[in-house]
Amino acid sequence: MRTRPLNVALLGCGVVGSEVARIMTTNAEDLEQRIGAPIRLAGIAVRRLNKQRDLPVDASLFTTDAHELVARGDIDVVVEVIGGIEPARSLLLKAMENGASVVTANKALLAEDGATLHAAAEKHGVDLYFEASVAGAIPLLRPLRESLAGDKVHRVLGIVNGTTNYILTRMDETGAGFEEALEEATALGYAEADPTADIEGFDAAAKAAILAGLAFHTRVTAADVHREGITEVTAADVASAKDMGCVVKLLAICERDGDAVSARVHPAMIPRTHPLASVREAFNAVFVESEAAGQLMFYGRGAGGAPTASAVLGDLVAVCRNKLQNAKGPGESAYAQLRVKPMGEIVTRYHISLDVADKPGVLAQVANVFAEHGVSIQVVRQEGRGEDAQLVIVTHTAPDAALAATVNELRRQDVVREVTSTMRVEGESGA
Amino acid sequence: MRTRPLNVALLGCGVVGSEVARIMTTNAEDLEQRIGAPIRLAGIAVRRLNKQRDLPVDASLFTTDAHELVARGDIDVVVEVIGGIEPARSLLLKAMENGASVVTANKALLAEDGATLHAAAEKHGVDLYFEASVAGAIPLLRPLRESLAGDKVHRVLGIVNGTTNYILTRMDETGAGFEEALEEATALGYAEADPTADIEGFDAAAKAAILAGLAFHTRVTAADVHREGITEVTAADVASAKDMGCVVKLLAICERDGDAVSARVHPAMIPRTHPLASVREAFNAVFVESEAAGQLMFYGRGAGGAPTASAVLGDLVAVCRNKLQNAKGPGESAYAQLRVKPMGEIVTRYHISLDVADKPGVLAQVANVFAEHGVSIQVVRQEGRGEDAQLVIVTHTAPDAALAATVNELRRQDVVREVTSTMRVEGESGA
Repeated sequence: MRTRPLNVALLGCGVVGSEVARIMTTNAEDLEQRIGAPIRLAGIAVRRLNKQRDLPVDASLFTTDAHELVARGDIDVVVEVIGGIEPARSLLLKAMENGASVVTANKALLAEDGATLHAAAEKHGVDLYFEASVAGAIPLLRPLRESLAGDKVHRVLGIVNGTTNYILTRMDETGAGFEEALEEATALGYAEADPTADIEGFDAAAKAAILAGLAFHTRVTAADVHREGITEVTAADVASAKDMGCVVKLLAICERDGDAVSARVHPAMIPRTHPLASVREAFNAVFVESEAAGQLMFYGRGAGGAPTASAVLGDLVAVCRNKLQNAKGPGESAYAQLRVKPMGEIVTRYHISLDVADKPGVLAQVANVFAEHGVSIQVVRQEGRGEDAQLVIVTHTAPDAALAATVNELRRQDVVREVTSTMRVEGESGA
Repeated sequence: MRTRPLNVALLGCGVVGSEVARIMTTNAEDLEQRIGAPIRLAGIAVRRLNKQRDLPVDASLFTTDAHELVARGDIDVVVEVIGGIEPARSLLLKAMENGASVVTANKALLAEDGATLHAAAEKHGVDLYFEASVAGAIPLLRPLRESLAGDKVHRVLGIVNGTTNYILTRMDETGAGFEEALEEATALGYAEADPTADIEGFDAAAKAAILAGLAFHTRVTAADVHREGITEVTAADVASAKDMGCVVKLLAICERDGDAVSARVHPAMIPRTHPLASVREAFNAVFVESEAAGQLMFYGRGAGGAPTASAVLGDLVAVCRNKLQNAKGPGESAYAQLRVKPMGEIVTRYHISLDVADKPGVLAQVANVFAEHGVSIQVVRQEGRGEDAQLVIVTHTAPDAALAATVNELRRQDVVREVTSTMRVEGESGA
């Protein structure tokens, strides 16, 4: 076994990067034992050299020239925690060209252009590991890539965004509206100043693309993922869910249906008895259904400096071990290349609330709209009378396009004053 | 990449083995893609050749001579699902001597003599994988061994035996006594005809030893694990737990405390808000607390043919990939060799119920017993009067030896008619 230390270059020294540097330094002895050789921080690329950093690392390690760092030639592993598409992509491609393995937490890059990165890793015989890109500290990608490698995954159902789960938890537990809950999340640091990526579902959609790719051995990009955020979820929706014994969650759902797959992110009602229902506040959890293993769930912190650093370090140990043996971990597995279904073809169930006129024949007219679109009704409940008359309808499963067309048609009915809530229902055994 | 298929020998063809053979055959194409080479069943060692087996494999593969099979010389991987210490140990040692990597589900063997197996794997440069030995289908050992390799695990708290969890769930949900719940579990196939290994905690203790070893990089054997089963858990204990907002679970608890570790299995009360509390029936779940990652939980089916086979197949893919690259996965990590603490030194909390005489000074006398042993009382509640007078006491944390001595001393007090229930309390943030 060689004795020279493995050189690690760190790109980015923010919340996650500084935790990585700190743990690499303070746990150096343990890491050496677990890897079989010492590792050392060979350089840290940052934007500003003169920023105050309370880190136990030599000041001479910092550089603003990330491109020079990754091309130095003596770097064994590059850890990338800067995020975003560029310059991260160019840096990682250059690093791999120079023989370095890569550990990255960059979900946006992997979801947009994972194929290019995987191809470069393959070409240059290096590793590309990215456990930290989905659900932070939760060991999830390694189980999907390796533990379930002999199994067939049917479905992945995940709460993969802590900000939106915090907001929805508050709405469920306090009856707050979306805006109020968002304000609270911002005040507590659970939501960023510009929360768009979280509340509009972009963050979850990138993760859904990565999960679907791993689960189904098929290339799935963020553009393939149907995406709806939680900004339209109202206190009334949450109350309706409660009436049904459900809770509203923003779910990332990846499914295999024969020779096609799908990936989508949207709010949905799930039964309170479902294991995901009790995942509260900023926690993440991913529920996996596979042929042999059955139901599995992985739960933990999905974000934050230390949790994300834990996932990065786990990957770092693995790629360093591989380096020492001139071996490679599992590369991209996209052999199946199944068709990715558009949202309209995906089979779902809807929960619909309608304000209706209180006159005879309303129910018949409404039911007729469903029938015309081939959508079967499971439950219909009339609430209130006169001005307050409400119909709550839960459908059986149908293609999403048919359900969406039904809702549009309902909006055009004279007896329907307003479609007050539409939400998909997931996680039921009958679904 | 070599083109000859990798030869797999299967030892045992019972509930798990036949599922392994079935999946290897029906998913052969997927497995080849994931491994990078075809794998084929080269032989299946069974006890009786003429047993009726509904498996899609050639009858000529079956043999009763397992020793001949593992020593054949052309076997790349041996999958062992026969269980027990011998002949499993001899077979696996011979297999490794002959250059085969090993995948095993044998918790008893690993917990009793893992060191011998690990040493053989190291000596012969082969892999020893055992994901299926703990918590069946749940990817748990790989995350501990690899994903958390850069982190520091403080505590592992697991429900790792489905039989006892089923029994305790029924006791909690129906108020049944232990015997009644056991009968139901037996009738439903959740308990074996001889349930000793499950209900006395032997099965969970073997798993605790394996988990502690991986979590703390220290050799821990089944003999190091303090073990109490659930046969003494009464309906009254379960009711007391309910009154406290708790539920009774059989827990495997592995803890690190400075430079010492501990592993124990016993029934304990945990708060209903703890993520483990909602793990019902025969499901398993393992809760991990680590320095950087924080709280993680892994949930799924802990037993059964297909779930266990899923874990075996995941390992099989990994060791086959390693074989193709002449690489080795992580071996035994026992570099820390921390001291294993005996139960008496472990700091716990007790919940104690006493039938007491209804006369002045009882509480003072009882409180004095606690004080004499240096045990601090957190809550004391008096229930009933006269003949029915009951004291319920919850302690602060103290060494288990002091708590046990306190209970013994209480039994000797004239004012104490009976110590009706003693149970440890776990999973509280204050604990």
